[in-house]
Amino acid sequence: MNLDGRSLIAGKIAHASAKTFHAVSPQNSARLEPDFHEATAADVDLAMHQADEAFEIYRQMPAAARADFLDAIAAEIMAAGDDLLQRASAESGLPIERFMMERGRTCGQFKTFAALIREGSWVDARIDTALPDRQPMPRPDIRRHLVPLGPVVVLGASNFPLAFSTAGGDTASALAAGCPVVVKAHPAHPGTSEIVAHAIYRAMKNHHVPDGTFSLLHGTGAEVAQELVRHPLTRALGFTGSERAGRALFDTAAARPEPIPVFAEMGSTNPLFILPGALKNRAGALAQGLKAAFTIGVGQFCTKPGIVLALGGAEFDSFIEQFRTQVQAAAPGTMLHRGICDAFHAGLDRVKKIPGVVVLAESDTDADPAKTQAEPVAFATDADTFLLHRELREEVFGPYTLLVSAQTVTELEAAARSLPGQLTATLHADGTDLADFADLIRILERKAGRVLVNGFSPGVEVCPAMQHGGPYPATTDARYTSVGTAAIARWARPLCLQGFPESSLPDALRNANPLGIQRTVNSVLTRDPVV
Amino acid sequence: MNLDGRSLIAGKIAHASAKTFHAVSPQNSARLEPDFHEATAADVDLAMHQADEAFEIYRQMPAAARADFLDAIAAEIMAAGDDLLQRASAESGLPIERFMMERGRTCGQFKTFAALIREGSWVDARIDTALPDRQPMPRPDIRRHLVPLGPVVVLGASNFPLAFSTAGGDTASALAAGCPVVVKAHPAHPGTSEIVAHAIYRAMKNHHVPDGTFSLLHGTGAEVAQELVRHPLTRALGFTGSERAGRALFDTAAARPEPIPVFAEMGSTNPLFILPGALKNRAGALAQGLKAAFTIGVGQFCTKPGIVLALGGAEFDSFIEQFRTQVQAAAPGTMLHRGICDAFHAGLDRVKKIPGVVVLAESDTDADPAKTQAEPVAFATDADTFLLHRELREEVFGPYTLLVSAQTVTELEAAARSLPGQLTATLHADGTDLADFADLIRILERKAGRVLVNGFSPGVEVCPAMQHGGPYPATTDARYTSVGTAAIARWARPLCLQGFPESSLPDALRNANPLGIQRTVNSVLTRDPVV
Repeated sequence: MNLDGRSLIAGKIAHASAKTFHAVSPQNSARLEPDFHEATAADVDLAMHQADEAFEIYRQMPAAARADFLDAIAAEIMAAGDDLLQRASAESGLPIERFMMERGRTCGQFKTFAALIREGSWVDARIDTALPDRQPMPRPDIRRHLVPLGPVVVLGASNFPLAFSTAGGDTASALAAGCPVVVKAHPAHPGTSEIVAHAIYRAMKNHHVPDGTFSLLHGTGAEVAQELVRHPLTRALGFTGSERAGRALFDTAAARPEPIPVFAEMGSTNPLFILPGALKNRAGALAQGLKAAFTIGVGQFCTKPGIVLALGGAEFDSFIEQFRTQVQAAAPGTMLHRGICDAFHAGLDRVKKIPGVVVLAESDTDADPAKTQAEPVAFATDADTFLLHRELREEVFGPYTLLVSAQTVTELEAAARSLPGQLTATLHADGTDLADFADLIRILERKAGRVLVNGFSPGVEVCPAMQHGGPYPATTDARYTSVGTAAIARWARPLCLQGFPESSLPDALRNANPLGIQRTVNSVLTRDPVV
Repeated sequence: MNLDGRSLIAGKIAHASAKTFHAVSPQNSARLEPDFHEATAADVDLAMHQADEAFEIYRQMPAAARADFLDAIAAEIMAAGDDLLQRASAESGLPIERFMMERGRTCGQFKTFAALIREGSWVDARIDTALPDRQPMPRPDIRRHLVPLGPVVVLGASNFPLAFSTAGGDTASALAAGCPVVVKAHPAHPGTSEIVAHAIYRAMKNHHVPDGTFSLLHGTGAEVAQELVRHPLTRALGFTGSERAGRALFDTAAARPEPIPVFAEMGSTNPLFILPGALKNRAGALAQGLKAAFTIGVGQFCTKPGIVLALGGAEFDSFIEQFRTQVQAAAPGTMLHRGICDAFHAGLDRVKKIPGVVVLAESDTDADPAKTQAEPVAFATDADTFLLHRELREEVFGPYTLLVSAQTVTELEAAARSLPGQLTATLHADGTDLADFADLIRILERKAGRVLVNGFSPGVEVCPAMQHGGPYPATTDARYTSVGTAAIARWARPLCLQGFPESSLPDALRNANPLGIQRTVNSVLTRDPVV
């Protein structure tokens, strides 16, 4: 594995800036070679100008050609082979097996978006034909479809070094929409990012995609990201990370002379409600499922259930006992990097200090700081305390969860109402639970982007119906998803063409419907040509 | 006509606050009775709380019931009869005939949105059925549809006292989506707003719509609007007005603890390019059409062509001569209110001071200040001057337009590139013009939400393919339209339901497809039930 350490701008290796950093293995705190060079303001400017220039060509490539390019990226990522898996594992502390899964999802996303744009109906073509004889005024011919926004900046997440990073869902959906992408690599996995970027470059060269369509910039602090968001040629931002960082980027984007959309996926506690029927029927299975859900990936999923709510009583007590045993048996795990591990422990300390909150259970095994480990911990409290302390409704990233017992349905609903916006909310429900708790469901519908029944929230499917986005602060824009085929809508806007002759129309809007896509013609959904 | 002058909050007449204002007839500067009472911070809070409470009921009303309510609003607005037309004319200075047209469009919008939600497919239902045997992990059942955001604030425009105001497109589309609406009446037409609000209230009572679903607040300054945007229960904002006011509201919304989407439709100069073939073939008709387009409604349309660009030469000179005659013959007209009239004349003064800009022609008739009149004026300059002075690319609201002659195609394209975001851009093109100027079209596609060929831009159709929204500063969010059926998308977000039993699903997502809507089932668009 021969890593270079410089940014990659428009198909070329950038200059070696003076300021360097390096990755660290969270498994053993060892320095990983090589040095990486932080991008400069000039690098940002170059990457954005090249992206803007490439946009003119890239957006006019036929969708089928863009689809072939996306498929080629998937193939090239596979071709990067074990080097990629090993570097990702070394930089993140996550096992190789996990990266085989995550790579599958990453490549699957490219193929899914390739299929979506090859089919083509996502452009939401609408045609209202002319009504020359209409009274009192004729109607002109009006046609509309979605077109790409322009250069997109993507800031990769640390917790999915493949699937939410350099070639993650943001990059795949933006390239699918027709937007060039400038990625700021997450500084915890710069080597993984470099390998992936080269895979994208190979696909670009083989498919005659203009060089500026993809760039990868390195940087450790907030500066490169802020420069990218401020740059006048940037048209939108995709981000996955903390609420603090996401909000700072959102604020910068909103303060621009021309504000741009920001799709920041930030914090979520993913409340999970165990309703009486479920609690009665399957406490053991729930205890096991919950333990897996809050410890998988060392609790570093954005949909980890961080708050568990139920009505108190003998049945919840019995569940708690079983859950306690599960937590004690759960092993500590290596977190992604030192910063996240420190933040996890600071979060535990914060919660411990709140009167009325107790440690319910923790792993029997001590965490090893040299291995950047976190130990699974569950806390417990009552609804009164939960309602009193806003900090309990904030995310603690890592293998942490908080059990909340309510005395009455009213208290349970009050706890639900007190929650901030969420990616997911879950109900475990048997028998008449869902009917009995219809009001609770109504509350959760307003809080979350996705409501699950009898599931555990990690498990984000890349499919048309997926919604991975919810009311603030889960995301900055609940109207969009960062996972699933609908994610492409973030990078497009409608363009209306009025009175255009057939010969000057894009294929999607031509009478004959040469792409064979679904369109809305005079208010009717159809694949038929306009006659 | 018996106007009361107090705000209307959740079906009731609000208290009479101490601070009052009154409308003024721009036709004769006379005071119009009665006094109107400015809403207080407590009124804002009450209206928003009532809206939020009503939301729980209103959003669960069947779409067919909401559609009947929308149709009833249209009928009640018609039933308000001549009182409405007369008051609108008195408050705006626009003729009764114009309001017969505008009322038709206003009612038409309600009927169009009623039909849209009665048909129902706008909720973009997507169903991915469970794959219990999938390896390595089963897929759960995942379903998604659009749900309303919650209480929406609408700030009406002065230039369409019916179609973009109290019961304008923002209100109609938000109510259609299932969102309660709180309108801040434009202070230039408070009486018109009161009459329309009562029409909405009659429809609400007859259709058992909860009281909080609609409120109308009065206010002259920015305070009431700012309070509404800051209110924690406000979920989105619709606005039509100046760039300065729109940006101030956008900034407030972005600075909230939970930012909310702002759909502000602001300034646009709607550049119009006359290409050589068209110039040669039909200079006379173009001169006549342009004169009508920039003076209709006293130039107070957001799509008024404020910049006209062409290649200089004998043919453009001939066009200019014909256009000059047209402008001289155009009569002055009464503007909407003193503030707009003053801003128009200040705009003319600003342009006149720029070296290299000349007054090409103005109305032979002097404007009468007592009648709040503006005189049509056309200016001319060259592309060099145009590129040098950013002010020339800013909107002058009223019967103003600027002719720009370029020496070369390169200059013409540079002028196009220098433009800020636009609602519309227009090309007049004959013969091979469109093919010859393909690069210019590519530039305009990136600048505007709607590109017209051989049309004049006023003429916004309420239809599926319409796009009335464009890159900043035309609007704050180019991804949405404020006119046409797609306007409903501004007030909705996706809600995903995973693993829900059939009995707990909303109708739009049930297997049997009881609403008969178009859905995406396992990636296929269909109206078939799920089997």
